[in-house]
Parts: sequence; C-alpha cells; structure tokens
Amino acid sequence: MLINLINPNTSGSMTDCIHQAAKSTSSPDTMFRACHPSEGVASIEGYLDELVAATGVIEQVLEGEKAGCQAHILACFGDPGLDAAREVANAPVIGIAEAAMHTASLLGHKFSIVTTLARTLPISEHLVHKYGMTAHCGGISAVDIAVLELHNPESDAYQRILTACQAAMNNEQADVIVLGCAGMADLTQRLQTALGIPVIDGVSTAVGMVEMLIRCGLATGKRHAYAPPLPKTYGGWQALC
Amino acid sequence: MLINLINPNTSGSMTDCIHQAAKSTSSPDTMFRACHPSEGVASIEGYLDELVAATGVIEQVLEGEKAGCQAHILACFGDPGLDAAREVANAPVIGIAEAAMHTASLLGHKFSIVTTLARTLPISEHLVHKYGMTAHCGGISAVDIAVLELHNPESDAYQRILTACQAAMNNEQADVIVLGCAGMADLTQRLQTALGIPVIDGVSTAVGMVEMLIRCGLATGKRHAYAPPLPKTYGGWQALC
Amino acid sequence: MLINLINPNTSGSMTDCIHQAAKSTSSPDTMFRACHPSEGVASIEGYLDELVAATGVIEQVLEGEKAGCQAHILACFGDPGLDAAREVANAPVIGIAEAAMHTASLLGHKFSIVTTLARTLPISEHLVHKYGMTAHCGGISAVDIAVLELHNPESDAYQRILTACQAAMNNEQADVIVLGCAGMADLTQRLQTALGIPVIDGVSTAVGMVEMLIRCGLATGKRHAYAPPLPKTYGGWQALC
Amino acid sequence: MLINLINPNTSGSMTDCIHQAAKSTSSPDTMFRACHPSEGVASIEGYLDELVAATGVIEQVLEGEKAGCQAHILACFGDPGLDAAREVANAPVIGIAEAAMHTASLLGHKFSIVTTLARTLPISEHLVHKYGMTAHCGGISAVDIAVLELHNPESDAYQRILTACQAAMNNEQADVIVLGCAGMADLTQRLQTALGIPVIDGVSTAVGMVEMLIRCGLATGKRHAYAPPLPKTYGGWQALC
Amino acid sequence: MLINLINPNTSGSMTDCIHQAAKSTSSPDTMFRACHPSEGVASIEGYLDELVAATGVIEQVLEGEKAGCQAHILACFGDPGLDAAREVANAPVIGIAEAAMHTASLLGHKFSIVTTLARTLPISEHLVHKYGMTAHCGGISAVDIAVLELHNPESDAYQRILTACQAAMNNEQADVIVLGCAGMADLTQRLQTALGIPVIDGVSTAVGMVEMLIRCGLATGKRHAYAPPLPKTYGGWQALC
Amino acid sequence: MLINLINPNTSGSMTDCIHQAAKSTSSPDTMFRACHPSEGVASIEGYLDELVAATGVIEQVLEGEKAGCQAHILACFGDPGLDAAREVANAPVIGIAEAAMHTASLLGHKFSIVTTLARTLPISEHLVHKYGMTAHCGGISAVDIAVLELHNPESDAYQRILTACQAAMNNEQADVIVLGCAGMADLTQRLQTALGIPVIDGVSTAVGMVEMLIRCGLATGKRHAYAPPLPKTYGGWQALC
Repeated sequence: MLINLINPNTSGSMTDCIHQAAKSTSSPDTMFRACHPSEGVASIEGYLDELVAATGVIEQVLEGEKAGCQAHILACFGDPGLDAAREVANAPVIGIAEAAMHTASLLGHKFSIVTTLARTLPISEHLVHKYGMTAHCGGISAVDIAVLELHNPESDAYQRILTACQAAMNNEQADVIVLGCAGMADLTQRLQTALGIPVIDGVSTAVGMVEMLIRCGLATGKRHAYAPPLPKTYGGWQALC
Repeated sequence: MLINLINPNTSGSMTDCIHQAAKSTSSPDTMFRACHPSEGVASIEGYLDELVAATGVIEQVLEGEKAGCQAHILACFGDPGLDAAREVANAPVIGIAEAAMHTASLLGHKFSIVTTLARTLPISEHLVHKYGMTAHCGGISAVDIAVLELHNPESDAYQRILTACQAAMNNEQADVIVLGCAGMADLTQRLQTALGIPVIDGVSTAVGMVEMLIRCGLATGKRHAYAPPLPKTYGGWQALC
Repeated sequence: MLINLINPNTSGSMTDCIHQAAKSTSSPDTMFRACHPSEGVASIEGYLDELVAATGVIEQVLEGEKAGCQAHILACFGDPGLDAAREVANAPVIGIAEAAMHTASLLGHKFSIVTTLARTLPISEHLVHKYGMTAHCGGISAVDIAVLELHNPESDAYQRILTACQAAMNNEQADVIVLGCAGMADLTQRLQTALGIPVIDGVSTAVGMVEMLIRCGLATGKRHAYAPPLPKTYGGWQALC
Repeated sequence: MLINLINPNTSGSMTDCIHQAAKSTSSPDTMFRACHPSEGVASIEGYLDELVAATGVIEQVLEGEKAGCQAHILACFGDPGLDAAREVANAPVIGIAEAAMHTASLLGHKFSIVTTLARTLPISEHLVHKYGMTAHCGGISAVDIAVLELHNPESDAYQRILTACQAAMNNEQADVIVLGCAGMADLTQRLQTALGIPVIDGVSTAVGMVEMLIRCGLATGKRHAYAPPLPKTYGGWQALC
Repeated sequence: MLINLINPNTSGSMTDCIHQAAKSTSSPDTMFRACHPSEGVASIEGYLDELVAATGVIEQVLEGEKAGCQAHILACFGDPGLDAAREVANAPVIGIAEAAMHTASLLGHKFSIVTTLARTLPISEHLVHKYGMTAHCGGISAVDIAVLELHNPESDAYQRILTACQAAMNNEQADVIVLGCAGMADLTQRLQTALGIPVIDGVSTAVGMVEMLIRCGLATGKRHAYAPPLPKTYGGWQALC
Repeated sequence: MLINLINPNTSGSMTDCIHQAAKSTSSPDTMFRACHPSEGVASIEGYLDELVAATGVIEQVLEGEKAGCQAHILACFGDPGLDAAREVANAPVIGIAEAAMHTASLLGHKFSIVTTLARTLPISEHLVHKYGMTAHCGGISAVDIAVLELHNPESDAYQRILTACQAAMNNEQADVIVLGCAGMADLTQRLQTALGIPVIDGVSTAVGMVEMLIRCGLATGKRHAYAPPLPKTYGGWQALC
C-alpha cells in the first residue's frame, strides 16, 4: 500500500517527524510518499495559514494521485483543504483531526483536545461540530506554545502539555486525550504512560484508517458533494488545468 | 462610505451585475470598489472552486484595505475565504450568504434557498449550520443551471427558478426565499412580485448590513479567533508578506 | 424613511435615551416615531412584565402603521410581542435582541451578553436559542442592577458592566459584547473604547437593519406564520377591532 | 384537590367541553374551577390571539389563586401565558401542549401532532423545541378546520382528523397521536379505537399530571426564572396591582 | 389500580424503601406489586450492572403482566431495560429517571441531578439526551457514596447530598433538584424543606404518572418500535418462551 | 493480532458468514476467535433481542479476554452490550454499526442506512444520534426481510436491498450506503459495483479499525465511564463472579 502523507506546512523537519510517527504503527506492507507543499507557510496557526496550506495540499494530492497513491492523509490538525482534496482525488482522503476524533469516540465517553495556540481553538471547535463530535468532546484547551517551538529542546512543551491533559482529566471528565497538533506526535507514548488513559495522535490513527479503507476497497463517494471539479480554467493554478 | 465589493470569481460581467445590484439599494453616500481577483476561476461551483476563489478574495481584501475601504463584501453565496478575510482585514467583512440568511430569519418563519447546481448543495447546507440557521431553513434546492448560464438570454433560468421557489413554498412552508447565487440578483424583484413573498438577494442585503456596521462604528473583534496573522513568511503569496 | 421606534416600557426618559441612540447612527433621511405604550410597566424585568409590555407594543405597532411607518423596532432586549407584531403589521418588525445577536455573529467567534437582573437570564437564553445563536453565544451574565437604576448617576452601573464584560472576555472567550438592555445604549462607545472589542447596542444596529430592509423593499412574509390575524372580535382590545 | 381549569378563550361551550374532558378521567376527590377570561377572543388561532389570551390567563390564574386552587391548567394547545403564569402563581401551572407531549414521549418512539389551522403550525413547532421534544416528534399537520368549526355537527371534522392521523402513522412512523387543540378532546376515544394506537388529549393528561404534583407536594421553583414579579405598578392591569 | 413496582436490584430493604415512597403519595385506590428480580445485583452502579438488572426487570415485568398489573414502574435511576420492557408489556412502563426529569421540566427553568457515584454520570447524561432534557438540565453531580451506603445510619449521606444540591443551586442556576437514585427517596421532603426549591424523587412522580395513564386509558403504542417481540426461541431465557 | 469476533446471535451459519467477511479484508497477521453466545436468540430484531444478545456478548467478551484477544468486535448492527463490554474488557471493543457509520462519514457527505425489519429502525436511529452522526445520516430504511431470510437463496433479498439503496441515492442524496445488518456482508461488493458509490459493511471496517487500535497501542480509557465493574456478586451470572 502506498499512502500519500502530506504535511500541509513547509517545514521539512516536521515532515520527517510525521513520517516517523506514521511508520511506527503502519502495516509491514505500507509505504509512504511523505511530502509537503513546494511553497506555503512553515507552521499553520490561523485561518489564513489554513487557506495557504490548503492550496499546497491540493498540489500534493494531485502529485500523489499521479504517483499512484492509494490514499491521502492531511497531517495538520486543522484538516486544511479536506473537502477540496476529496473532490480532486480518486483515492480516499483523511485528515488527522478527523481520524483522531473518530478514534477517540471509540475509546471513551469524553475526549479532550490539547492544542498549541489559543487563536486556533475556534478552528478545532468548528471541526468538532463538523465531525459530529459535539457530545463526545469534553473541551479544547491550548498550551500557548507556537507549533515550531514544540521541538525546541529548551521549551517546556512536554510539561505544559502534560499539565493541560491533567486539567482536562480533572475538569472535563476526559477519559481520552486527543493531541491537537501533528507536531506533538512524538510525545504520544510518553504522555499515555504518564496519564494512564489513551492519548491519541492523529497521524498514526489516520494511517490505520486509510489502511482499513484500502483493504476494504473503499474510496470517496464521487456522486454528489465530491464529484470531480467541472472542467474549467483555473487561472494561476497551472497544476489544476 | 467606501465598500470593497468583491466578486470572488473572475467574470467581469458578473462583477458588473453585482455592482449594479449593490448600487440599486445603497445609501446615497455609499461608493463601491467593485473588483474581482486577478486570477482564478470564472464561476464557483464546488469545493476546489471555493478554495481557488478564497485565495483571490484575500488578494482583493488586502487591496481594498490599502484603498481605504471601510468594509468588505464577499459576493459569492459560498462566502469563500470569509474567516481568513476577517483575520487579515481591519474593516468588517460580510459574505452574501451570511447576509441573506440572517435577513431572511428576520422576515419569516422558514426560508428556503434556491441555488444553481446540485453539487453545491452541501456547501450551502454547511453554511446554514455555521450561521445558526438550521431551524430557520426549510430546505435547499438546485435548479441545475450552471452559474454562467444564468445570464444566457436563451436559458430558461427565470422560469426554473420560479418553479423551484413555488415548490419550496408548497413543500417546505417557505415564507421567504433566499437566492443562492450572486448571479441571480437581477431576478430578485421580478420573482418577489410573482411569488408574493420576500425574495432575498445577498448582495443588496449585505450592502445594507455593512452600511449599518460602518455607521455604528463596529468592526471585527480582533482579540481571539480573528487576531491578525502571526508574522511569518508566506511562500508563493507575495501579497501577504 | 419613517421608523416606528417603540420603547415597550412606559418610562419617558428611557424613550428619550433610545431615541438618542437611534438618531446617533441613522441615515440622514431617517426619521423616528419614538413612542411608548399608553399604559403598562415602567421597566421590564420578568415574564409578566414582558406580557404586559407586549400588549402595549401591539398598540404602538398599530398606531405606527396608521402613521405610515415603514418599519417597527421593539426596543427592549426581551423583544416582547415580536411574533404578534409581525402578524399585525405590514411593515417589517425587528427586536433589538434579534438585531444585536445577528450583528454580533458577523463580528466575532463568540459573543457574550451582559444584562441587568439575573431573573431575566432565562428570557435572554430563550432568545439565543430562538434566533439560532446557541453556538455563537459564549455566555450570558447579569450585573444585578435594576433597569431604572442604570441611569441613576449615583449607581456604579458602568463599572459593574465593565467588570462583567471583562469577565466574559476572560472566561467565555468573548470577542464581541452584546449589551442586554436598551437602557445601556449610552454606555456603548465608552465600553468599546475601554474593552478594545466591539460592543453592540441593539437599538443602533436595529436602526441600520430596518434601513437596509426598507432600501431593499423587504417586509415580513405574510403567507404562513405571519399571515394577518383572522377577522374576529378582540374583547377588551378595542384597538384591534 | 381543587384545580383551576382555565380555558384561555372566551367560548363558554368550549369551557364546558374542557370541563367534561377533565372530569372524565380525574380522581374522585378532584374538583375543578372551570373558567375562561372575562374578555378576550373566542378562539385562538395565531400569535396575536395567543397574546390576547395570555392576558386573560393571568387574570384567571390570579382569581384561581385567591380561590385556593392547588394547581392551574392552561387548556389551549399553544400554552399561552405559561411562563408568566408560573411567575405570578404559587401553585404549579401546566399547559396542555406540555402535558400531552411529555405523556406522548412515555408511550412511543415518535408522536405526531394533528392540529386545526396551518397558520398555527409554527406555534406548535416552537413548543416542540421548547419542551425538548424535537427528536420525539415525527411531524405536525393541520386539518384546516377553524377551532369553532370543530363542534359544528355538520363539519367533517372527525373524518379529516382521522385521515390526518392515518397519514401521520404511514408517513411519519407515528406510534402515538397528540391532538393539537383542546376542542378535539371529545374525539379522543373514538380516534384511539379507530387507529389502534394511543391518542392523547392534553386536558385529561394535564389533570393527571397536576394531581401527581399535588400529591407529591411539588410546585414551581420560585428561586430563579419564576421568582414572583417585582413590586411595581402595572398600568391598565388593575388585577395585578 | 394495581401497579407493578419493580426495584431492579436485589436488595429487599431497598424494595421496601421504594414501596414506602410509592405508597406515601399514591391515590387511595392504588395498590402495588412491589418486587425485585429473583437474581441479579444488589446495587446498580455501572453499565454491566444495568445490563444484569435489565434482565431481571424483564422477568418481573412478565410476572407483573401475569398478575394483572395495569402499569409498570422501573425504580432505578438508570431506567434499565425500559425499551425492552415496553416491547414485552401490554401495560405502560415508566422509568423513574424519565418520570423525574419530565416532572422537573414542568416546575422550573433548569434542574440539576444529584446522584451517587461519579462512574454513573455518563448513564444519567445519556438519559438526559434521550428524554430531550438537554436544555433543561443544568448539570449532573455525584456525591461519591455507594448506593448501599445511602441507608447506613453512620454515613454522612444527607449532608453530602445537601451540599451538592446547594452547589447546583449556586453554580448551575438550578431551581429544581432531581434525586438521581431510588435509594434517596426518603430524603426528599427533608431536602426540599432545607433548600426551599422543589426536590423530585422519581418513585413518587412515576406513581402519579402511571395513575394518570391508567385513568386516561393510555398504554404503549405497539405499532412500531414497541411491537411485541417476534415469536422465536430465547435460549437460556425460559421465562420469555 | 488475535481479535475476538463476536456474533451476538446464536446462528452458527451467520458466525461463519461474519468470519468470512472479516478474513477477506484483514491484515495477513490477523487471526480471529469467531464465536457466538452459548445461549440466546438466533436473530436480533428488537429491543428484547438486543438485551438477550447483550448478555451473551458479555459472556463471549470475558471468554475472549481469557483467550488473550487484543480487541473485540460486536458483529450485530445494534451494537448490543457495547458499553458494558467496554466496562468488563481491558482490550478495546467496537461495534459494527459504530465502525460502519464512522467510516461512512469519511467517504461522503450523507450516508444512508439500509436495514432488515422496520421494527428495528428506532434502534438504528438511536445509534446514529449516539455516535454523533445525525447530520451525516441522510436516512434509514428497511427492506422488510427477516435476518434469517437474508441467506435464503429463494428470497429476493439482493434485489430489494439494491432498490432501497437506489431510492436512498435519489431521495436522500446518499453518496455512501451503510448496510444495516451483519448478515448482508456478503452482498457488499456486488452492491458497490451495481451502485457506483461506496457500500460499507460494518464487519470488515471494524476489523480494520481494531487493527489500527492494536497497532497504535490504544485501548478503552478505564478511568471514568468504563472503569471496571465494582467487586460485587452477580446472582445468576456465574461467569461474572
């Protein structure tokens, strides 16, 4: 199985981190086309960043389709460009927020999301509603660390995330934690051990979900909302023509 | 008052039609910067089109801010790029779907939306939920006419829209009609006369709403979800740097 | 444009205050029929008060229709008698809670309402649901000042409202404030300056909204829920016969 | 037990019909103060009628309190004045729409409401939401018979109601029928026999519910939403002073 | 009237306590078949316990039907087996959580539930949604006392429940309290006197509700969801064959 | 990986069919403990059947835990006993309705469920709400074929299911079909080919989901709702003691 693993931002080190997370739990026969947009933004922390990233996601989805990928994963917790990606791709497409939240709902009564900057809370909140998780989500909180600071060895990222998870367990009745940023993937096991409840990274769960879709022969329904774009000229978007 | 009136597609004739609708109901002291993106797509009929159009919307919002516009109107019924536009602009931003639905809820018990192609129904449905109009919207239907066909004098667009509105009145208890495409603006009065219930065009209602905001000294709250983008490099998006 | 500006309580000084707020942001060509019921209650602080006020609202809506008003504004945050007013009037009718909440949803991710007495919180909560604003409203809080005390120069009304707004910003992620009483209209600008986020008074926003409706030629749909009352005798309600 | 049985309209024959329905299923020790407002409207078929009736309801609630009634029933399917009645009364207050819908939810998966005129459908729909019955209500339909025509022996009221109930069973999966007008109470048994599923009249179920409340020593919580009105002058409402 | 009063756990002393509560408020002509399953679990504090109890409930519903009972009450706040009981019984069936919540919604704006162990909070939360009470329920809290400890004279159960009720009044705007365990029934009056707002025990309210149903000639609609089980062999469930 | 594949009914041939579906899409290293309860009901078509089946599910979950299974699948579309199973098991537990609906939401805008008997529609409807799929589910319909008739070669099951799927595509805008019975698993590919949109069988999707959970090291959160049952005596349930 060849999976298109798209980091929607342009940070190569984050692409590596995501690739690492994906490989650590994938099936033996799964291979990844780990990639990121040729241009865009180095971290995604707001609506404009989501929009810029979404255009890069489409570029990489189209590249992945050409490369014969059997599924696409959008590895940013805002799932930027997900609907448009489903429209342009024949292979199925999953976002990591989507994968993480659906998985969380299988493992507990209430999950809480812990993410990076407070300014992105409305984006997560919107996805919670969109995916039908309003009643399953106990709360969303931010640790106020910028995405690219997560991997700064001198940051106290782990400790602040741990504290936020513990607060969610105490105040929001969380019995599952969802990590709200692809850049937190490498902390998953450590946090799960410390907290004693499931901690979910969207990357590895998305990998398992698309493996399932491929094995079951399932792809996006192309008959209605996700029918291929009508033939037209996309000015300035040569890749789409 | 100077209002930035953005047609998110690249069709100049539709920009003119939108400008006409805006001027027909605006205050005497209101002037418009009628514009469309420099590149993009000539009509917006799906998720990819929305994404492409949203990038053009941001370009024109930034241009409009430089030109001293006091408000921005996104004149496409999918409200493409609305959240990102609120983030980058200091002046308030309204989409025409938003304006039309809020207005409709002031005038009746149930409004029905009549739009162009069935493939865009999920986009309208999503906006109905996002704007809190789930209980006010009686239904959404499509007449299966492409956007650029609306103004083809040989099309039967008026008749098909009229029939769809009548069906909504009979089957969905609609007492208000919302026209689901900026390109239908010139049919508003004719339909209202024929149907005997209010028919709402998002362009003219959006004009009145931003005039109200400007007179009241109100603009987007920039403290939380819509705080300005963080300073960072937007590769390939020179306009944003 | 002639707008019927109805203060649903019988306090003349509050009628003046509402009239002042309305004039301060209206179009140059807008004139008001500022009025209040001939009998009723001097302040509206509960369900019974709402009911008594609603009967006075109908009286004044009918008077306004006779006077040729092109729209009616109900200037009490409980929007008393709104549905019945839409039924009896040909001109459109807007309540100030309705106007304020819809406007707030155009300007931020979450608005918070700050109102007078805690006993009226359920009334505001009901309107939040009715208008589809459940997901947009971060919270409703009361400062526990009676309506008629707001304008007592010896009260600490401004300070208590300011404190409640700041609490909403910190605890409810509010990026917009809605003032939950027509009697707070004169504090709007001062609060907005102090808080740095939009502060919405329902009176001035309602004025802009009805100006928009009038310019667009829109009025209540009279075909279904708001069809005129059936011809019948209203005992004790001579004005309605 | 003495129960204040309030017909909110001024039709004496309907008061008798309601009294009959109430007595037919009450406990042996229950007595009724059957009454209607001294002035008002002979039938309630719209928002204005609801408002006029609500003022009469308050008059009769206050009379009933003076007469020592231990509970109040509002015997009109719009439950006019219910919140204000709870505010002014010490004894508990129930509306027949409220009683009927809660009862229906105990007896089946989906109930359907069959009412008189289509213009009142939005009023019933609003109560369905207010009482939390959105998921339990399969639909609401009107037979287009005016309230006062129900008891005209030459009308085909029974047949049309029967047909509407059968349609609800077939199209809305109804396994319970709620009759949406106090004036239909005398048809309940006949319809139940003909349809083979429970048919609920709000009057008799409300009687049983208030008997339950009285036996359990339960009354309205007066601490928050339903605290007694503040002492103030109600101009034109002598009864309230 | 003969009512089947089923304690779903196997504790005889709790059956007596429930019987006492039922008799204290029932009609003079009401008699009870107070019972509990022949086997099962002595207290119900989790999903497995609910399941085990539900099987015992069916056993006792069938026994009660044979004994000529005219209604069945499930006297455990989780309402275990309610849907299956409605399917197997001809007489109507009510659970005490259902009875308590519906009654609470008639008496105030927001009720709060106070229950025993925190591990059962999700069960109550699920019932709140199922019964349509999401908007009426201000909160659910646990006092962390095991069911069988409630009647231990050395426990501080009353004091802890009182404290939890007071917290609900202050923090959740509760104007009605629902006791979330049949074993709390004997504390109802004492708590109501201390708190000054209605305190609802599901047992006595359920008794009044089934008396109402019986007097009105109402039973479960057996046409759709609750049609009798299809004839088949229930291995290991001799009572059902 | 060893997965406990539980057919909740006692039909051995259906267990074989489910086992076949599971093996057809599983990973090479996945093995199944295919089983069904020692006693119970041969098909599950109502609330009582669900309850009887749930007790057998717990028996088999406990057996599976002893046998070292790393996950449990409940292969009946009603997901009987799911919450109790999560409570008693350490390994994760998934129901096939849950797996199918979550998967469907990843592949289209609206899925429709096609199931066997109309009497089970409320059970599916309840699960749609419980899993947060209300906005994603376009409709649920029944073909009125008993479960055990599905595999009768003389039945017209395939044709009736195909017709129901086509109706859902036309009337409910379905772009994904969910098969609402484990016994339909062998028709999945044939239907998908005929319909041209994804057709989802819960068994194979559940297999992929639990493989994902196992690879990611995820299991049920045992801290709150799904904490292990308290130590107590389960009379008549020797397996639980």
